[in-house]
Amino acid sequence: MRIYDVIQKKKHGEELTKEEISETVRLFTDGIIPDYQMSALLMAICLRGMNGEETLALTEAISNSGDSIDLSEFGNLTVDKHSTGGVGDKTTLIVAPIAASLGCKVAKMSGRGLGHTGGTIDKLESFPGYDVSLSPEKFRNQVRDIGISVVGQSGNLAPADKKLYALRDVTATVDSIPLITSSIMGKKLPSGAHSIVLDVKCGSGAFMKTPEDAKILAENMVKIGNMSGRRTAALITNMDVPLGRAIGNALEVKEAIEVLRGGGPSDLVEVSFALAAMMVHLSLGYAEDVAAQKVKESVSSGIAFEKFKEWLHAQGADPAYAENTELFECAKFSRQIRAAKDGYVSAMDAEIIGEAAASLGAGREKKEDAIDYTAGIILEKKTADKIKSGDLLATLYTSDASKLDTAERIFNQALKFSDSELPKQKLIYSFLS
Amino acid sequence: MRIYDVIQKKKHGEELTKEEISETVRLFTDGIIPDYQMSALLMAICLRGMNGEETLALTEAISNSGDSIDLSEFGNLTVDKHSTGGVGDKTTLIVAPIAASLGCKVAKMSGRGLGHTGGTIDKLESFPGYDVSLSPEKFRNQVRDIGISVVGQSGNLAPADKKLYALRDVTATVDSIPLITSSIMGKKLPSGAHSIVLDVKCGSGAFMKTPEDAKILAENMVKIGNMSGRRTAALITNMDVPLGRAIGNALEVKEAIEVLRGGGPSDLVEVSFALAAMMVHLSLGYAEDVAAQKVKESVSSGIAFEKFKEWLHAQGADPAYAENTELFECAKFSRQIRAAKDGYVSAMDAEIIGEAAASLGAGREKKEDAIDYTAGIILEKKTADKIKSGDLLATLYTSDASKLDTAERIFNQALKFSDSELPKQKLIYSFLS
Repeated sequence: MRIYDVIQKKKHGEELTKEEISETVRLFTDGIIPDYQMSALLMAICLRGMNGEETLALTEAISNSGDSIDLSEFGNLTVDKHSTGGVGDKTTLIVAPIAASLGCKVAKMSGRGLGHTGGTIDKLESFPGYDVSLSPEKFRNQVRDIGISVVGQSGNLAPADKKLYALRDVTATVDSIPLITSSIMGKKLPSGAHSIVLDVKCGSGAFMKTPEDAKILAENMVKIGNMSGRRTAALITNMDVPLGRAIGNALEVKEAIEVLRGGGPSDLVEVSFALAAMMVHLSLGYAEDVAAQKVKESVSSGIAFEKFKEWLHAQGADPAYAENTELFECAKFSRQIRAAKDGYVSAMDAEIIGEAAASLGAGREKKEDAIDYTAGIILEKKTADKIKSGDLLATLYTSDASKLDTAERIFNQALKFSDSELPKQKLIYSFLS
Repeated sequence: MRIYDVIQKKKHGEELTKEEISETVRLFTDGIIPDYQMSALLMAICLRGMNGEETLALTEAISNSGDSIDLSEFGNLTVDKHSTGGVGDKTTLIVAPIAASLGCKVAKMSGRGLGHTGGTIDKLESFPGYDVSLSPEKFRNQVRDIGISVVGQSGNLAPADKKLYALRDVTATVDSIPLITSSIMGKKLPSGAHSIVLDVKCGSGAFMKTPEDAKILAENMVKIGNMSGRRTAALITNMDVPLGRAIGNALEVKEAIEVLRGGGPSDLVEVSFALAAMMVHLSLGYAEDVAAQKVKESVSSGIAFEKFKEWLHAQGADPAYAENTELFECAKFSRQIRAAKDGYVSAMDAEIIGEAAASLGAGREKKEDAIDYTAGIILEKKTADKIKSGDLLATLYTSDASKLDTAERIFNQALKFSDSELPKQKLIYSFLS
């Protein structure tokens, strides 16, 4: 196989063979195929596409490029949930203990945040003492004992994806359905869970801007997951507006705790419960309506919250923080953003709000940047809400007062107002399995 | 300007601005834009195309990336001829002295051969003593004194093209009309000639396989040349079959001398005379039929051949080689290829014949390879010729007997036979100006 011929074939829109794809990924990961040839191939894939067989081959090549976690001792009970990335998305903190409290095995590896979306691992580190890097043995023991463990991604999980993504990121070859599919699923497969629930975000704060595009991506990922022998399902959910009211690590953790204790904003509850029900349905085999009922009961009965505290304790954090969220360190500075006139909020661009939160210290631009766990935003109004002049729209939080002006300016760019009432946006567009 | 945005724009099929293109070429040539970003952009250009304005901007950016030759002292009399590359193409050796003998100023920089096509500079070096690297002063003095000089390309002519071409060559991004156009014209413009005649080859031995593709390339190059203030014209000529009977450096030189002395194969005479007439028409302003008549007369009267010898003498070679081609060193070994049965030659793939000649030592695979000036092929039959079993089809020549078997095998792959007579192929498809 010559990489030149592979590029040429894809440039002409021809189908690549499984061998061509696996060899290309292997040689690229090993540094034998140089970046400049791979980026030409990636651009050709962006513009010419890949069919299901090719996408599966690429996914498997990425999946096989590094270590994989053996969760076979847990049979079909293991389940993973993956979000394509959104603003204010703290659902993992909610769905993982719910599913575990109902008998699922949640052995999950999560990422850190970069850019305008936050990462679950950063959120968990808001709990002093939470250990994100358990050994494989400790990780498996914890899953065996209490049904749940969430750690950072292993260094050698899908190294091909790391290299490919770094190159796509600088060559404008990110927005391609087969490349996104294989990148996400290529990391999910070696993570070992038997069932996978995908939360495909859609809207201004997500990668996919329209429900149609999100559906194509979701269909592709579900197909690849099922072709690879995993039970896979997807929800397509709204990310025109941040999910819930809190954006920023400790702020989001507190909101997740509210939900686990039976409260919390209704949009966050709805999406979290739907995801959790799908996890329970896929891995334990309950009918969908039964699974939904069990999820509700796990929260109302308190077993989900108990599981959450058990999890914190097992992983080195103090469960007292869950009982009393006032223990969390608070931001030193805050600023209130108020409405200038009467009317309705007509848009609240999630991506820009994510950037405002990051500018307050809640996110990082580069991998090495430190995070201010106290920083972030609490939204008091959201899209379609009626407002009066002087109403509190949001409060910005940070430990660095010098960041408030910039953050306020960014935040204000996210908002649009209208004099007339607007229809409520859909929260969950569709289910696929 | 961010190169990421430029790649993204072209990926989406948008038009790039002149500034975006010139900055991209400048930063790439300076090593600031890395290869992996440039190759993604090149692939996007291959698949999305470029319009005339973009192609002109790219051509000018390449042209301006290095030195340019100032030929302004010769006014409108300077003329260049450029072939897109063919097998057995020795027309430069013929048209340059013809045009110079009629008053044109032929100040030409030529390349070396690589792969299956030969380079004019290699052919000229078949003459012992021929100096291909005159100083700019000597080059200009010779043009002033005798109207003709042909040298190798200056080291710093269009360095952007060298870098771009090296990258295109390994990323399957060669076959793009705007990229080919800007590569060729980006080197022609800084070479300084006021008129440019393009010989766009078309067929199995050429880059463009069909007359339609060749016409699109020719139209693009003529347009870009004229937009850049040069009088530009193009001929589209057949390269399904090698031009003339000789392939290989000294063999081709001897055939060119035959033509300059009034003989030679009719196809080579026809194409050479048409190109020379176009050069004379463009640069001296004679009507096309007058120019054609003058070209014929320059050969029949002997002034073209005299100019050829003057040129050799001025550039350090012995004109006696032109008078008596038996002075050229001969190949030590040869092999005759004969017809196995009666019929007609139905195809003689020029590219494969070029490869056979290269395998005999006439060409090089890598820039550093040495050339066997005596090596090559003399064709006795060509496509559409009637043959009888035992007829001599061709003779292979080399200084290395071990190369004959491989060359014969390659040569035989080029041939197809038929029982019935075939229509003669067109030699010149069209003229564009």
